[in-house]
Amino acid sequence: MDNFTFYAPTYFVFGKDQEDEAGKYVKRFGGTRVLIHYGGGSVVRSGLLDRVKASLDKEGLWHTELGGVKPNPRSGLVYEGIELCRKEKVDFVLAVGGGSTIDSSKAIAAGTIYDGDFWDFYQGKFVEKALPIGTILTIAAAGSEGSPDSVITNENGMFKRGATGEGFRPTFSILDPALTQTLPPYQTACGITDIMAHLLERYLTNTKEVEVTDRLIEGLLLTMIHEGPRVIADPDNYEARANIMWAGMMAHNNSCGVGRSQDWSSHNIEHELSAVYDCAHGAGLAVVFPAVMEYVYTHDVMRFAQLAVRVWGCSMDFADPEKTALEGIRRFRAFLVSIGMPQNFAELGADAKDIPAMAKCAVWGDGRSGHIGGFIQLSEEDIVKIYRSMV
Amino acid sequence: MDNFTFYAPTYFVFGKDQEDEAGKYVKRFGGTRVLIHYGGGSVVRSGLLDRVKASLDKEGLWHTELGGVKPNPRSGLVYEGIELCRKEKVDFVLAVGGGSTIDSSKAIAAGTIYDGDFWDFYQGKFVEKALPIGTILTIAAAGSEGSPDSVITNENGMFKRGATGEGFRPTFSILDPALTQTLPPYQTACGITDIMAHLLERYLTNTKEVEVTDRLIEGLLLTMIHEGPRVIADPDNYEARANIMWAGMMAHNNSCGVGRSQDWSSHNIEHELSAVYDCAHGAGLAVVFPAVMEYVYTHDVMRFAQLAVRVWGCSMDFADPEKTALEGIRRFRAFLVSIGMPQNFAELGADAKDIPAMAKCAVWGDGRSGHIGGFIQLSEEDIVKIYRSMV
Repeated sequence: MDNFTFYAPTYFVFGKDQEDEAGKYVKRFGGTRVLIHYGGGSVVRSGLLDRVKASLDKEGLWHTELGGVKPNPRSGLVYEGIELCRKEKVDFVLAVGGGSTIDSSKAIAAGTIYDGDFWDFYQGKFVEKALPIGTILTIAAAGSEGSPDSVITNENGMFKRGATGEGFRPTFSILDPALTQTLPPYQTACGITDIMAHLLERYLTNTKEVEVTDRLIEGLLLTMIHEGPRVIADPDNYEARANIMWAGMMAHNNSCGVGRSQDWSSHNIEHELSAVYDCAHGAGLAVVFPAVMEYVYTHDVMRFAQLAVRVWGCSMDFADPEKTALEGIRRFRAFLVSIGMPQNFAELGADAKDIPAMAKCAVWGDGRSGHIGGFIQLSEEDIVKIYRSMV
Repeated sequence: MDNFTFYAPTYFVFGKDQEDEAGKYVKRFGGTRVLIHYGGGSVVRSGLLDRVKASLDKEGLWHTELGGVKPNPRSGLVYEGIELCRKEKVDFVLAVGGGSTIDSSKAIAAGTIYDGDFWDFYQGKFVEKALPIGTILTIAAAGSEGSPDSVITNENGMFKRGATGEGFRPTFSILDPALTQTLPPYQTACGITDIMAHLLERYLTNTKEVEVTDRLIEGLLLTMIHEGPRVIADPDNYEARANIMWAGMMAHNNSCGVGRSQDWSSHNIEHELSAVYDCAHGAGLAVVFPAVMEYVYTHDVMRFAQLAVRVWGCSMDFADPEKTALEGIRRFRAFLVSIGMPQNFAELGADAKDIPAMAKCAVWGDGRSGHIGGFIQLSEEDIVKIYRSMV
């Protein structure tokens, strides 16, 4: 196991109606002037935004708001939020929404107290501090409610890039599974796929003998396999929603990724797709991840066989472990299809003519140096081949 | 899933030789006057204590020390530590040792800034604050390095009782698996048993549909089953030690116990044994836990069958699930024997004549009200029967 540090000081409040206590938690953690950041649509229509405001009012907390976050959140709104926070002397950013809203909130929270351009963080600068961030999560997917990470798309070139740092761990996060019960099946399935992808990026390691984190990852994957179809069949199933919500947080707070190399090539390859086509990140991952696996599995057949046996319930073919490895990937793909995810470029609305440009951008764009991936290093040529296998 | 809050803000530093950075972390987290608290023996002999002192000296930190913590740590030394901390205006308690040393440090850290008797916390008062606590862990077992819990034995009556509260979460914990390589096999096995017991106390739940935490617990148990025999056979195995060490923290920081009822009757029943005979807590648990399971499994046969199939690799007997449940308990017992743990009163050095007094104390002693246990409520009569089954 590699040496590591792990620090996850977010205060989690989990359960039905806990969002009505948002004001109490903002106050407990020192906020006095609050930016409420959100997307729009259901957060407004469902009355959630009003409930959150009422909760802040109850505690006598001043607040302003900025809506309009889109999936694959953009830099333009981040700049707007930073300007607003500075003007209004905001000291607490409260995100009400999913991963996009939380990621945009993180960018605003860091950018507000940073002298330079916030985009510096998305080109590799470590986020040491930010305004305190609270989250009220409305979709189990990105894990941003417990992670030190954020992904933003720069409208100047449509680069989609991630930033990380201790300043990005939310101060508190409210997880109410009931808020996710109104999600359409497609969005729910995208979230399930994203959670599984966070686990699998960590599973594709070159670090030997990491049984404890292997087992934790496998346990969370098995949870998703059990709960995913239940919630697609019955969106109102609170218990299934609750299990997925906690699994989504655990999948990405890195308690199951410590001390081991990780991959993240699938995320990088997908980011080009959602940057260009504005498709849902989870849907993009459903197409990309099995394709990457098929491209890289020969690097460590036994790791893929382990995944196939322990997670996908395959019988081990002791005479030909490669068959088992491939059967596991096949079952993963079949699972994704069963919950309504796309399998190829056409279903995603992607176009093969963009492959050369996307592959180039994935390995060379905005600060990269010709390769991506921690499991094996993938070149531009490799990525072209992977994209082509999805057509 | 039940509503819950989860807050685990300990900064973990994991890996070889990280204890030489102790001074740096004390300083980062605001300590200036440090009590180094430890047991004795190996911490001194191995030179670890001197290395820790050198690390504090390097950062210019004033320190004093208090050794002499024994397994099943006693109230007398806690009172002594509180007096020393007050006299010397200590503002940081640094525990160097295992669970007993950490638990004693927690009691001192809370007691120093509390107006009343520190024992109040061990009779149910929630620990809201304490002096900041750092730990340098030397045995993977109690999980106290990441937990909000502490167990102390009151010499006035030999009551062994637990306390809990957010003030008890260590500020930082240094986990160096290499420090555990010199542990004798018996102590290592006691630690393995304690870790498994922390997981199983959480597994024995009445909360329905808690797949995510079931799977996390099962994953950590599978880790112990894989790594336990490896480390008993080869005490120098760093990788096995590392996996066990992280599993031990995860087993008890409650990320896998949230949102579900838990049991803890085995711990309570064992505490009487180690209070009376001063046996190792893990050894006591090895005798108690399978006996409790055999006594309570009919309350939820399918839960025990699930444990048997998923963790112990039993084949499900669909015609007679009870057989599967019992086979799981049998394999658990066989595993404990295989790593050198005792199976009965005689091997533990316990005496059947003490059973009535221990059973009485378990359910009535020092603040209890006639029952223990979250899975099923156990009365004095039940506990007599359980103890008798161990003779």
